[in-house]
Order: sequence, then structure tokens, then C-alpha cells
Amino acid sequence: MKLLIKGGDIVTHEKTTTADVYCIDGKIEAIGLNLDVAKDTEIVDATGKLVMPGGIDPHTHMQLPFMGTVASDDFASGTAAALAGGTTTIIDFVIPSPQQPLIEAYHQWKDWGSQSQCNYSFHVAITWWDETVHQDMKTLVDEHGVNSFKHFMAYKNAIMATDDILVSSFSRCLELGAVPTVHAENGELVYHLQQKLLEKGITGPEAHPLSRPPIVEGEAANRAINIAGTLGAPIYLVHVSTEEAVDAIQYAKQNGQIVFGECLAGHLVVDDSVYQDSDWGKAAAHVMSPPFRPKKHQDALWKGLQSNAIQTTATDHCAFCAEQKAMGKDNFTMIPNGTAGVEERMMVLWDKGVNQGRLTPNEFVSVTSTNAAKIFNLYPQKGAIAVGSDADIVIWDPKAEKTLSVDTQYSKIDFSIFEGMNIVGIPVTTICNGKVAWDNGEIKTQPGDGKYITRPLMQPTIRAN
Amino acid sequence: MKLLIKGGDIVTHEKTTTADVYCIDGKIEAIGLNLDVAKDTEIVDATGKLVMPGGIDPHTHMQLPFMGTVASDDFASGTAAALAGGTTTIIDFVIPSPQQPLIEAYHQWKDWGSQSQCNYSFHVAITWWDETVHQDMKTLVDEHGVNSFKHFMAYKNAIMATDDILVSSFSRCLELGAVPTVHAENGELVYHLQQKLLEKGITGPEAHPLSRPPIVEGEAANRAINIAGTLGAPIYLVHVSTEEAVDAIQYAKQNGQIVFGECLAGHLVVDDSVYQDSDWGKAAAHVMSPPFRPKKHQDALWKGLQSNAIQTTATDHCAFCAEQKAMGKDNFTMIPNGTAGVEERMMVLWDKGVNQGRLTPNEFVSVTSTNAAKIFNLYPQKGAIAVGSDADIVIWDPKAEKTLSVDTQYSKIDFSIFEGMNIVGIPVTTICNGKVAWDNGEIKTQPGDGKYITRPLMQPTIRAN
Amino acid sequence: MKLLIKGGDIVTHEKTTTADVYCIDGKIEAIGLNLDVAKDTEIVDATGKLVMPGGIDPHTHMQLPFMGTVASDDFASGTAAALAGGTTTIIDFVIPSPQQPLIEAYHQWKDWGSQSQCNYSFHVAITWWDETVHQDMKTLVDEHGVNSFKHFMAYKNAIMATDDILVSSFSRCLELGAVPTVHAENGELVYHLQQKLLEKGITGPEAHPLSRPPIVEGEAANRAINIAGTLGAPIYLVHVSTEEAVDAIQYAKQNGQIVFGECLAGHLVVDDSVYQDSDWGKAAAHVMSPPFRPKKHQDALWKGLQSNAIQTTATDHCAFCAEQKAMGKDNFTMIPNGTAGVEERMMVLWDKGVNQGRLTPNEFVSVTSTNAAKIFNLYPQKGAIAVGSDADIVIWDPKAEKTLSVDTQYSKIDFSIFEGMNIVGIPVTTICNGKVAWDNGEIKTQPGDGKYITRPLMQPTIRAN
Amino acid sequence: MKLLIKGGDIVTHEKTTTADVYCIDGKIEAIGLNLDVAKDTEIVDATGKLVMPGGIDPHTHMQLPFMGTVASDDFASGTAAALAGGTTTIIDFVIPSPQQPLIEAYHQWKDWGSQSQCNYSFHVAITWWDETVHQDMKTLVDEHGVNSFKHFMAYKNAIMATDDILVSSFSRCLELGAVPTVHAENGELVYHLQQKLLEKGITGPEAHPLSRPPIVEGEAANRAINIAGTLGAPIYLVHVSTEEAVDAIQYAKQNGQIVFGECLAGHLVVDDSVYQDSDWGKAAAHVMSPPFRPKKHQDALWKGLQSNAIQTTATDHCAFCAEQKAMGKDNFTMIPNGTAGVEERMMVLWDKGVNQGRLTPNEFVSVTSTNAAKIFNLYPQKGAIAVGSDADIVIWDPKAEKTLSVDTQYSKIDFSIFEGMNIVGIPVTTICNGKVAWDNGEIKTQPGDGKYITRPLMQPTIRAN
Repeated sequence: MKLLIKGGDIVTHEKTTTADVYCIDGKIEAIGLNLDVAKDTEIVDATGKLVMPGGIDPHTHMQLPFMGTVASDDFASGTAAALAGGTTTIIDFVIPSPQQPLIEAYHQWKDWGSQSQCNYSFHVAITWWDETVHQDMKTLVDEHGVNSFKHFMAYKNAIMATDDILVSSFSRCLELGAVPTVHAENGELVYHLQQKLLEKGITGPEAHPLSRPPIVEGEAANRAINIAGTLGAPIYLVHVSTEEAVDAIQYAKQNGQIVFGECLAGHLVVDDSVYQDSDWGKAAAHVMSPPFRPKKHQDALWKGLQSNAIQTTATDHCAFCAEQKAMGKDNFTMIPNGTAGVEERMMVLWDKGVNQGRLTPNEFVSVTSTNAAKIFNLYPQKGAIAVGSDADIVIWDPKAEKTLSVDTQYSKIDFSIFEGMNIVGIPVTTICNGKVAWDNGEIKTQPGDGKYITRPLMQPTIRAN
Repeated sequence: MKLLIKGGDIVTHEKTTTADVYCIDGKIEAIGLNLDVAKDTEIVDATGKLVMPGGIDPHTHMQLPFMGTVASDDFASGTAAALAGGTTTIIDFVIPSPQQPLIEAYHQWKDWGSQSQCNYSFHVAITWWDETVHQDMKTLVDEHGVNSFKHFMAYKNAIMATDDILVSSFSRCLELGAVPTVHAENGELVYHLQQKLLEKGITGPEAHPLSRPPIVEGEAANRAINIAGTLGAPIYLVHVSTEEAVDAIQYAKQNGQIVFGECLAGHLVVDDSVYQDSDWGKAAAHVMSPPFRPKKHQDALWKGLQSNAIQTTATDHCAFCAEQKAMGKDNFTMIPNGTAGVEERMMVLWDKGVNQGRLTPNEFVSVTSTNAAKIFNLYPQKGAIAVGSDADIVIWDPKAEKTLSVDTQYSKIDFSIFEGMNIVGIPVTTICNGKVAWDNGEIKTQPGDGKYITRPLMQPTIRAN
Repeated sequence: MKLLIKGGDIVTHEKTTTADVYCIDGKIEAIGLNLDVAKDTEIVDATGKLVMPGGIDPHTHMQLPFMGTVASDDFASGTAAALAGGTTTIIDFVIPSPQQPLIEAYHQWKDWGSQSQCNYSFHVAITWWDETVHQDMKTLVDEHGVNSFKHFMAYKNAIMATDDILVSSFSRCLELGAVPTVHAENGELVYHLQQKLLEKGITGPEAHPLSRPPIVEGEAANRAINIAGTLGAPIYLVHVSTEEAVDAIQYAKQNGQIVFGECLAGHLVVDDSVYQDSDWGKAAAHVMSPPFRPKKHQDALWKGLQSNAIQTTATDHCAFCAEQKAMGKDNFTMIPNGTAGVEERMMVLWDKGVNQGRLTPNEFVSVTSTNAAKIFNLYPQKGAIAVGSDADIVIWDPKAEKTLSVDTQYSKIDFSIFEGMNIVGIPVTTICNGKVAWDNGEIKTQPGDGKYITRPLMQPTIRAN
Repeated sequence: MKLLIKGGDIVTHEKTTTADVYCIDGKIEAIGLNLDVAKDTEIVDATGKLVMPGGIDPHTHMQLPFMGTVASDDFASGTAAALAGGTTTIIDFVIPSPQQPLIEAYHQWKDWGSQSQCNYSFHVAITWWDETVHQDMKTLVDEHGVNSFKHFMAYKNAIMATDDILVSSFSRCLELGAVPTVHAENGELVYHLQQKLLEKGITGPEAHPLSRPPIVEGEAANRAINIAGTLGAPIYLVHVSTEEAVDAIQYAKQNGQIVFGECLAGHLVVDDSVYQDSDWGKAAAHVMSPPFRPKKHQDALWKGLQSNAIQTTATDHCAFCAEQKAMGKDNFTMIPNGTAGVEERMMVLWDKGVNQGRLTPNEFVSVTSTNAAKIFNLYPQKGAIAVGSDADIVIWDPKAEKTLSVDTQYSKIDFSIFEGMNIVGIPVTTICNGKVAWDNGEIKTQPGDGKYITRPLMQPTIRAN
């Protein structure tokens, strides 16, 4: 399979140049002008367009069983949505139930993932602890290419990891060369506030943000960072949504600590006024954790991206439909938490980031692809337009327009948090593993075309502060 | 009982004036020049000296049962030491064992305290939680004049309060108008580091600071502040010893939160090099928690006092002698934690604070007396030189000198962390409840002369941020 | 002249108590219940009301000659407005023209001030420098009770003080025991931006905030603080209006520096949307420097008051009417800078501060009166309800209401930046120098009844950082 | 000219790989294993060694006429020292005298530079302002490949640029696509403190740091950053030496501003105790501006490098010998300011950075080469080991040792601020423009072998904050 992308401007995280990109059998073979290519090479004309590394969404939940239901996008539909948005790799999560063996859960998710149309990989959540968990972490690293483990600091009485588990698991990650990641919210406080609100009879979606105020995230972010810092481990915070958490990251980085932050496309542009919607369904459709925040936090997140406090953008794509959301009709704590976005992420980042002057095109590549590849040790296999790298590429038309809508999306969710947003600058062709996977509105792949991506362990950086 | 303090310069937290102070029956009756006094009035000449509010040490542990032994200073000897150093009130701690009824513990301590020679009051520790604790807190507030409750975030498997207890107890404090206080160290991390060090065969006092690095305090300080902030409760951090904790306080205060910080005289002037002493006994004598810190933290604490991040100074006076310290000969985690200081605190603050140009005399009064009185709702009964206030007064000679030493101290401990420190500016007479209690090296009181001080509940300040 | 204020709750910066206040000949003679008073004592019933120190507005400009016109409120009308708002002392500014002898200017202003109906005092501006200025500063301190000097870092080609003048004058202040104050805006940048805007044809009031962005204030605040810090001098920043300046103050305070900040009632509640008003007159009526700011800065100012980064509130009362504002019809740089507020300040602070839960009543007293008295060395003569203090008192009815309006104000300005604001909690009686000066809407004083207040020099606090 | 570097580990700013590097005619032709190379290819064995981009020192002053003398290293000797230390490019400074035409000065320096043995380029200083300067800046950018201009905020009465010049020049830089750089010290304060010290009779080198305290740098750093920020220009701070300046950079970066910082090898490891040396000559040998600082600032600089507040390392190499330093025998302000380091910089960074666990080898490459190339728009021509890049390469032996000493250095200065420092990890071969330029202690180049490097203008990044 040979492919030549002709005439585009190649935008990487470091520079912008004009050259053709020649791909053979899923790899980039050559980059340059007037390349010698085989006769049977498929030509993709990128004149006037940008050629960038395919997006990496490091935070999705396809077909997640959660809160008594299952997310509506499976790996087949969810990854089709990803490709339609220029994303060629997702990193999803294996979430064992407490007491479930990690390896068993891993295989369950691996099996579901085999229907993926783009590339996929897994973080594995540590939701409980005993000696077998300690052992299985090594097996996952050694035999299954897992180099990151997730910890939920919220969800008391379910999958919450208390401090003792964090200490044990972060230590283990450090030994193994894996990076610990956390969902940072203080679960005790969330639980307490939920009970107080329910006691007062405040049961609707408007109670959701009240039960998870920004300070609750700031506390947990700070705690996870300090636990990691004490042990000498790196730490990655998923879905940073508050100024307080950004401040915690900055504080640690300024002290020389290795800390990574991720934010969601949704948190960058949607604010907490959505929970005041008089339409219960609309308000409930926005219930996710952490919740959407007052506008000033958006400013903090953009500045976090600019100042490298936040390195990656993701979606926490977890598609629950109206019928599912209705489970919490009388009790906001039972509304399944989740919103979609894997398809829209890069468009939102381009329009609100690059077009608004907040990010350069090179920074756009960093935060949608390259940084995630570096942090999870896929670079330069992924996240790069370079000879020898995987041919995961998105061709972007900076002048083309599109209005985001539930009516035109690939995701099976029945709601879009970006509904009606007009985007200037959209993907026109997505190339995955050296083949055109999506082109001008048409999916060219089949379920199962995506590859499982193993990620090698890392040599931890030692800092002598 | 009538007393006239003549000719001194009255120094309060706000101003310095020259006037006489006339005390009757334990209260200040009048302040001025040429006062009309009764014939039988005792005259204390304060010419050339400073007349200041008697010190308040808000953190002592007399005859504390801890780690298998009992602190050597009982309320009689410890309060004599206090008076000899210009301190007229201590606030000690009732520490119930887990499952012990609070009221029972309170009466036990109250009984011990009855031997006090200066005034005394109690914080009560919340070391466990159930409905009776919830109820007893109210009884203590309503019937026994307790308006502050202490929480240990360290000492896992003993008296550590986990997050759920903190949430419950801080909420209860808020309802009752009491102030929650915390010993801020992450107990899980301390426990983990202790085990690691012991596993490596590092068993001496040099392991003590390694098991409790500054970041472990910073984490807990931040957590306690954020839990209180979420609930709307005030918070008081005892023995702040690190830059990280000062930063956490500053961050919260800048966001409008009500946070109080206390530091110890010892942490202001002693650094962690003491744990490298080749003499096991000397190193062990310095074992207390939090440990002494690298020098840069001293700078942070002084700046904290100057910038009002830290409002009070205390000692955590807990006198363990060599024989007791020897319990941890083979295992540093078994060395009883504690050092003395109730006698030296004000002299250290004067010499290293005022004489070094770090504090004004008025600021000295704030941080040794007035601020503690305000925070624990004793002001202007205590902490003031004002008509109607209690006649708890120290007369200070700014030119007199003294060398601190175990040989000349009142405390029964056999070691001084301030050994050999030469002080310029010392107390010459301490007046407690309107009587001369200590004068030029001589104690004039008897065990039991001190009064138990009830502290009324507070109206919490509401902040709408 | 004897006056008894009966039955009120006395609110000071430190405490709230219920007692009567007995005033004789302008001084507070006694405070207590059941006081023995002379028969000819005038009784003021304060039952159900609060008795607080009269306000001090440390920043007004009565009848200021500025930008080719003269402020409409003279000392007679402006101080009547002050009294009607509960303010009993103003500190105005002597502003010599460049090359004008300081003493000459001082006498000019002193003469104008003699018409004051409340008490008044003067800061003196340093607008140029030579040996006579150096000498006159001493004369002002020694003979005229001036202990503060003002420096404009903006207004290039007019009264701007460049760095060499700041260095010379701050040094001189330090020698003399006076406090230097600054209007912090980078004059070079303002000038540059003004020219750029005019070149682009942007000439209306909407250009005013664009020519003085927040960062321009942040820069100058930081510079003034650091110059003072280098020299060891204290520093007071007038009309702090931005988050950047608050941050600069916090940074310095955390390093132990002595820094004071003042903010204006207007900046706390009015935002920069006013400059978009389609009515030129309304937009121009809001032209003052620094300009009103985006809303997030209001939040920073309130937090600054709460965290003691900002200690005082003022108004920069400088009353220019529509006709005067019209001088800048074609060029925003010629609109006379100034708005009013001396009458409304305390009501705005009470309603938006105390009623909103942002400040306690005691904190209200601190920021409207006591702190200014302390900083400018008038305490406890002013800013206190204490035996021996001046009887400058405001009686506040926390339940009474009033709608602020140009129609009902005392100021001669024809516009109110607080128009239509409904206030709950207003002054009902103002007592100045022991006499009722304003009562229920009626002025009882005459021009000239106010006293000139001399302020003694200060002993600078030395900090050894 | 063909060269093959065989068997080494290639370390770039992003990754470490094992491969050979094939260079033809000064460019890197190929990277890989088993490369096909021409027969006449010179082979350099790098087995067991690291192959890294040649160093870029962005701050040197060869043969600078300054303070009445001329720096002892000319471009021939200074660049030989550079090559001996693994540095293949220097960026020196054209410093016009006030009123001297920029182009004239440029040609003067260009002529001197023609003797260079490694590659060289020039920043041009803006020391005065009029319309011709405005015009000449464009000529330098368009015709001479200058894309950075330097501004001295210190040196009053000589080359100091006041705020009006900064505003004009930064604006011009922004228009032209050049980056303004600053030497950040408040010249007014330095001048004031110098005079005060001389008046007090403190005339020796110990007065030098007293005349330039850290806060003086912090002020100027903050001012330059804010002026640039107001105008929308990027800003580069040379020789950041204080915590205060690092904090100023962090603050601006967190607000999304584009700020770059440089620190010197000397400031990272030498502290201000050197000025207390009883040997006048040794103390004077350390006189440079900014001065060496108390140790805590070193910690801040290392953390700055780790957290990307500081991106580059330089030397400010300016070689004044004992005889020259003696010009200030009676007056420290007349000691020529300058120390050497161009040869030692990379070794110091490796030993104190990488060996101490503060920097990874990849970060070492970033801060010694790649970041400077990126900021001054030479990347990936310089600062990279990549096909098509210039063959400027250093081969590093991480196990070899060397003791730094004036006895073995190339620089003509008679003193080493690093005297006696033992280094593990040193350059063994330096390749410049595809030829071995220095090998095992032997220089292989001739004066004039170095190339003048033009640097293209930049597209400024727009940030919409």
C-alpha cells in the first residue's frame, strides 16, 4: 500500500514546511519535494491544506459499563467518530471492578476494542489493592504494552482509590516505569455534599456542580501531585478543569517536579450555565465529572495550554443518551456521568485555539497529538510527521467550514455539547496506518481495521531537588 | 489584691505608650499617669522596661501519655516554666484514645490541669467518630468552654483522622461555632516512608526527617485548608514548619478564606542538621513531628509571621527525657516525639525576632499573645493591656541578658534545644491574675493557682467568594 | 459641648460591644453602661444602630486644578458630601506644578481647605526634584504635619515622576519618617498607547481603558514596590484597580516587605462596560485613571481587602461635570479624569461588602477608617472608639435603605457612577469633633468647622530579610 | 568533505537513539545503521560516546571595548575556547556607542568576527534612539540577518536604555519580526546604591553585589516583560540570576505571554561569597553584572531550567585580566565587569546538571543548544542532529574526567571562576561545519574558519489573552 500526500504544508509541533509525504505499508517512507514514488502510488492532493500528525485522544470510554448502564458508543462507532474528526489513535480505559483481577478485565476490554476502526490502546485503572494487583501490574507492563495506570480519587463506595492505594500503586508504577494518572476530585467531599444537597431536596442536575466545586478538584490534584512527588514518581492529571488544579500543577512544576496535565475540549468552551437549563434533559446531558465550570476556569485552562502546565487535550468521550440520563430523574447522583466529543475535539481546538490567536498551529499539533505521544511513550512512532513514523495523518483545510451538530455526527449519542458551533478549519482526509480512513464525510474503514498499540515502559526522569 | 506597675512603656499589638497600670483583684482597673491608687497597693517598678500582655502558648502537652510513656512535665512543673518565660496562659490538649468518650477524657485532663500554676485551657482532639462524638462536641462547647477541636492527620493506626472524620468534624465545628485545628502531615506517606526506611535498615534519628519530608506537610496543610474551605469552616494549622505549608496558607488567604497558622519557636531557629549528630541521644532529643527542617524553611516561617500567614507562636511543649527517648534506640519510629520550649519561646522570639529587625515589639506582642487570644476568642480578656482585661502581664527588660540552658530551666526535661543561646531582652517579672507570679528567678505561685479558662463559641465569619 | 450616644452597638476594627459613648469637647470621655453624664449633655439615641468610627477617605481632590479646569466640588461642598456619607476626615492632595515650591503650593491648598466642614489633612505630591524640594519635604514634615508624599508614575510631560525622582524622594521619605505613596501606571506606555489610538482615529472614551490596560498598572506597582524595597522604605499604592497590582503587593508582603494598598469604592463595583455606552456623556463621565476594569479585577480587589493586601478604601473624589468632560469631545486624552464618591463610599462598602458576606462589620471599620488612621499615623486619635480618641463617629442603621442618585447627593457633580444602586444599611447621624455634623439628611456644620489634622512622622519598621 | 560518526548514541532534545551520522560538505546527509558511505569518508569512532548537537552560546563578548579597556579574548582565541568546550556557534553583541550609527558598529564587529574559528552571529544593542536607529534596525534585519536586539536597562550615563527607548525599540522589533532582549537591572537604583556605598567609603569588590541586589534585577525583569506584554512583543531576558526574575518570568508565562530566559553557567554554581575573598584580585575577578548571588538563587535557576522558565544557558564570556581589573583598585564601580566561561559552560551543565540528576541528557541538549536555535530562528539548521541540518556536532564521553583550570584553558583570561572543579563527562571531539574542529585537546581550525550566521526574521506568535 503506497500513498503520496502532495503539495501540503506539513505542520509538526516544531515547524512548518512545504513538502510531500510518501507512505509505504503504514509507515512514512520519505518526506520532500519531487520524491521518486512507485507507479501504483495513490495520490492525495493536499494543495492549500495542512498535513499534520493524526490526533491522539488519550481519554475515551467506549462501551463503558458505568452506573448501571453501558455507554452507547462501542469501539466501532466511537472510533469511526474519532477518524471523522482527524483522530487516529485513542487511549481508552480498562476499569476492573473492585476485586476483579486486572488481567481478566484487560482481556475483556481488549476483546471489545478489537472492533476499533482507528488505533487504540489502554490505560488500566487501579480500583482496589492486594498482592495480585501488584503482580498483575507487572504482567500488563511486560506482556501487554500498558505503561499507564489510572486512579479515581472520587466515586466513594465504588471505585475510589484511597491514599493507601495511591501510595502503593504510584510506588509500583515508579518501579515498573509506568506513569500513574488520576481523576482528581476529593471523593469524601463530593459524597458529603451530595448527601447534603439531597437532604435539602435539591435533586436536579443543577445540584451536580454544587456537589463538586472547583476546590474539591484543586485539593485532589494537589494531593496526587504531592504523593507522587514524595515517592519520586511522575504524575498525569486527567481532565483538569479548574484554575485551582492548574495552579497546583504550576506550583509543582516550578519546583522541578514532573507533572502532566490534560484538559477536555468541552471544559475549554462550555461553562456551568448549562446546568441551569430549564429543560431537564439538556441539563442532564451535560452531567459529567468534573462538571463544566464558571467561565474564569476556561481562561485558566487556555493559559495552562499556552504555558505548558497542560500538555494534552482529550474528551473523556462517554456517550450516554437521554434514556440513560433519565435514570437520575429524581436524584442527580444517579445520572450517568458522561458527554461525547471524540469527533469534535480537534475542530474545537483549532477554531477556539488557533483561529482565536490562543495557539499557533504548531502548538495545536503539540496539544492534540505530539505531547500525548511523548508522555505515553509512543513518540516518534505516533505524533510525528517524520521518516519512519507511522503514517497516521490528518489533512486539514484551514478555510473550510462546518457547523457541529448531533445531526451530522458519527457518535451514537443523541446530544452534542457543541451543538451549533460554527468551525472554520476542519479535517478533510484522515489517513490511518497509511490508508485513507475517512475522506470528505465518508468512512473507508471497517470495524477491526484499527491496531492495538503497545506502549513501552519508560525510564523515569530523576530530579534531585 | 492591688498592684501598680509603674513607669514602664506599655507595648500592645497596636501601639507603644508610657503609662502606669493599676490592677485590682486580677483585672486591670486603670491605665494612665498619676493614677489614684489605694494605700495597700503593691508597687512594681517597671522603669526602663516594657509592660506587655502575658504570653499565651496555644500548644502544649503537659504530662501527655504518648507512645508508651508520659511526658515528664506535669501541669505543675510545666506551668512554672511558662511563668518563668513570661507566659501566663497555656492551651493544652485533651486527647481521647480512639473509642474513649470525649467527656471522660476531658475530665481526666481537667483533673490533671488543676495543678497548674498559670492559667490553662484545653483544645479537644477528635481521634475517632460516631454519634456520641458528634454529641459530646456540643456538650464541650456548651458546658465546658471548649471552642476548638484538634485533628491529627498523621499517626496512622493510632489517632489519625481520615478524610471522612475531618469532613464530619469540621462540619460539626462550623455548626457549633468552634474552630477546627489540624496537625498537618499525610499519615499514609509517613507510614510508607517509615516502613521503607526500616526495611533498608535505616533505624536511627537521621531517618526521622526522611520519613516526614516537607512535601508531606504541604500536602496535608493544603488538604485540611481545602476541606475547611469547601465546608465554609475556618481552619487553624498547628506547628507549621515548611515553606510549602506557608504557601498553602497564603494561597487560601488570597482567595479570601479564613485560615490561621501557628509556628513553633523551635522551628524558627533550629534546623535539621541536628539529626546528623553523632551522639544518638542529642539527635533523638530533637525528634518531634514535624521534624526540624532545612534552613530555608526558617526563612519562610519568619516571612509568614511578617506577612500574617502565620499569626501565633507556640511550642508543642512535650517533655521526654533521655531514658524515654531510648525506647526508640533500635527503631526511630518508637522514639517518643517531643521537645520542650514553653519557658524559652518568648525570649527566642524577642532575640531572633525583634533584635534581628524581623519583628517590631508590637508584632512581637501580636504573635506571642494577642493573636492567639483573638483566634481562640479570649480577646480582650487576654492578650491585651486594657481597662477591664485580665491582669496577665509580663515585664520585659530589653537590655538584660540570659543564656538559655538546661541547667537553669524550670522544665523537668533533661535537654534544651536552645542550649547556649544568648538572649538579650528577657522577662523580669510575670504577673498572673493580678499577682506577681514569678520575679527575678523566683516562682511565687503554688500548683493550683492557675485558673481554668473557658472560651466562648464564635460567630463564624461568612465569606461570599 | 457634651454628647451621649446611647444604646448602640459599638463596632470597632476588633470587636463589637454594647455600650454608651460619652463625648466632651470633641473627645471621647467614657465608654460604658450607665455612665454618669452632665445634665447639659445632648443625647443621641442609637438603639438598634451601630456606632462606628467616622470614615476616613484618604484620597480626595477637592477643587483640583487639573487638565485645564477645576474640580467642581470645593472643600466646602465636598466635605459636606463626606459628612453625609459618614466620613469625618479626608486626606486631600497638595499638587505643586513642576518647578513650583512645595511650601507655596501647600499654603495654597491649606487656604482652600480652610472651608472644610469635616476634618482634613494633606498628602503632598512630588512632581519635580531639586535641592529645594529635598529641603521643603523636611519643612512640611516638621512644621506642617505632613507625613506622606505622593508620586504620579503616569502623566508624562506633566507631573510624572521618573525613576530618578522616585529614588530620591523615597529615600528622603525614609529619612524623614514619612510614607511615600504612588499612583502606579507606566506613563511611557500610557503615552505610547494614547498616541497609537489617536493615530488610528480612535478618539472616544472607549479608547481610555485601551490606553491604560491592567498590565500597565501592574508594571508600575511592581516597580514602585521594588524601588521602595531596595531602599528599605514603606510604600502605599493609591487606587489599586487590577489583579496584577494586587499580586505585586502580595508577592512583596510575602517577602516581608511593608506595603500598603488602597482601592476605590468605584473600582469595587463598576466595570469597564461603561466605556461602551453609546451616550458619549455617560461614557466620558466614567473617565478616570486608572479606568474601570473587567469584572475579574473586582473579584481580585475584594479578595485583596479580605486578605489584607489592600487595607484602605478611598474615592479619588474629583468632580468634573458634563461641561468639563466635553473638553475631550474630540480627543479622549483631554477628557478631565475624575469621578465622585466621597459620599457613597461607606454605603457601597457596607452593602456590597458586609451585606454580601464579603466583609464582617469589624473588617468594614478597618477598611473604611481604622487602617487609614494607622497607616497615616492618626490612630488611635482617629479610627477608634476609645477613651481619649477624637469623637468622630458615625451612627449606622443596618436596616435603613436608600437609593443612591445624583438627585439626592451633596456633591456638586452632575453624575453618579452609583446611580440607582439600592443600599441597605446607611449612616443616619455623623458626629464630627464631638458635635452632630449631619443628621437624617441635614447638614449641621458650616464651612470652616472642619479641623486641619497634622500627622506626626513615623518610626519606620526595619525588616531584616 | 565526508565524515562518518560511527557507533555513538545520538542524543537530541527529544530522544536518544543509536545510529551513525554521515556528513557531507558541512551538512548531515544521513542518519542510520549500516549507511552506504563514500570511500574517502573520514571515520570518527563514537562507540560508547554521545553524539549531540554542537553547543550554542547565545551570549558572548569577544574583544569588547568596555569601561576603558578591551576584553582579552578576541574572536580567534574566544572561539577556539568555544570549540574546546563543544560549542560550535556563538552569538556575540554589536554594541554601538550612543549616537554611533548602528550599521557602522555592525561592520566594525563583523570585521572583528571574521577571525572566528567557530560559527558566529550577532545581536545588536539599542543604546540610543532616533529615526536613523529606527531605520537601521530594518536594514540589519533585511540585509544582515540580525533578528534580535539587545537593551541594557543598567549602566546609567552610558548605554542604559530608558523606558521610552524600550517602548520604541520593542515596538520596532515587533514590526520587524525580531526578538528584543534585555539586560535587566534597574539602572537608577544601581547608580544610587553605588553612590551611597562610595560615600560611605565602601570601595572594594564586596560593594559590587551590594550595589546590585536581587530585587533590582527582579524589578527590571518585570518591567521589561510588562512593556513587551503591553505591546504584544516577545521578550528574552539575558543572564537571569535571581529567584525574583524567575518568578517574574513564571508569572508572565502563566498568563500566556511569550517570554524567554537565559542563565549563565557561572550563576548556576558560583555564589556571592567570592566577593568576600581577602585577596582583592580574586574578588575582583568575579566582578560581573549581574553579580554572583546567594545560594538560594542557584536553586531557583536550576528549577527554572527544569520548568522551562529558563530555556537557554550562556556565559556572557567577557575576559578581563588582573591588570584590567586593577583599574578599579580604589573604586569598585571602575572594575571592568566580566568573567569567562565559553569553554566550560557545557561541562558545568553536564556535571552539575545531568550527573546530579537535575537534567536529563535530552534536557541538557535543549538548554545548551536546541532552545537557543529555536528562539533565534536557527532551528533545525542548528541545534539538531537531523538529515539536512548543519553538521555542528559534539562527541561527548560521559565517563571521561577533567579538572577545570586556568592552566589548561584556551581563553586568554588569567582566571577561572570554575578553578579546580572536577568534571565527569566531557567533550572529546567537536565537529563544526562537517569537519573535526577540535579533537582530544587539539584545535584543528584556523582563525576565519568560522562562518557568519544570518538569522531570518520570525513570524511573531499572537496570543489573544
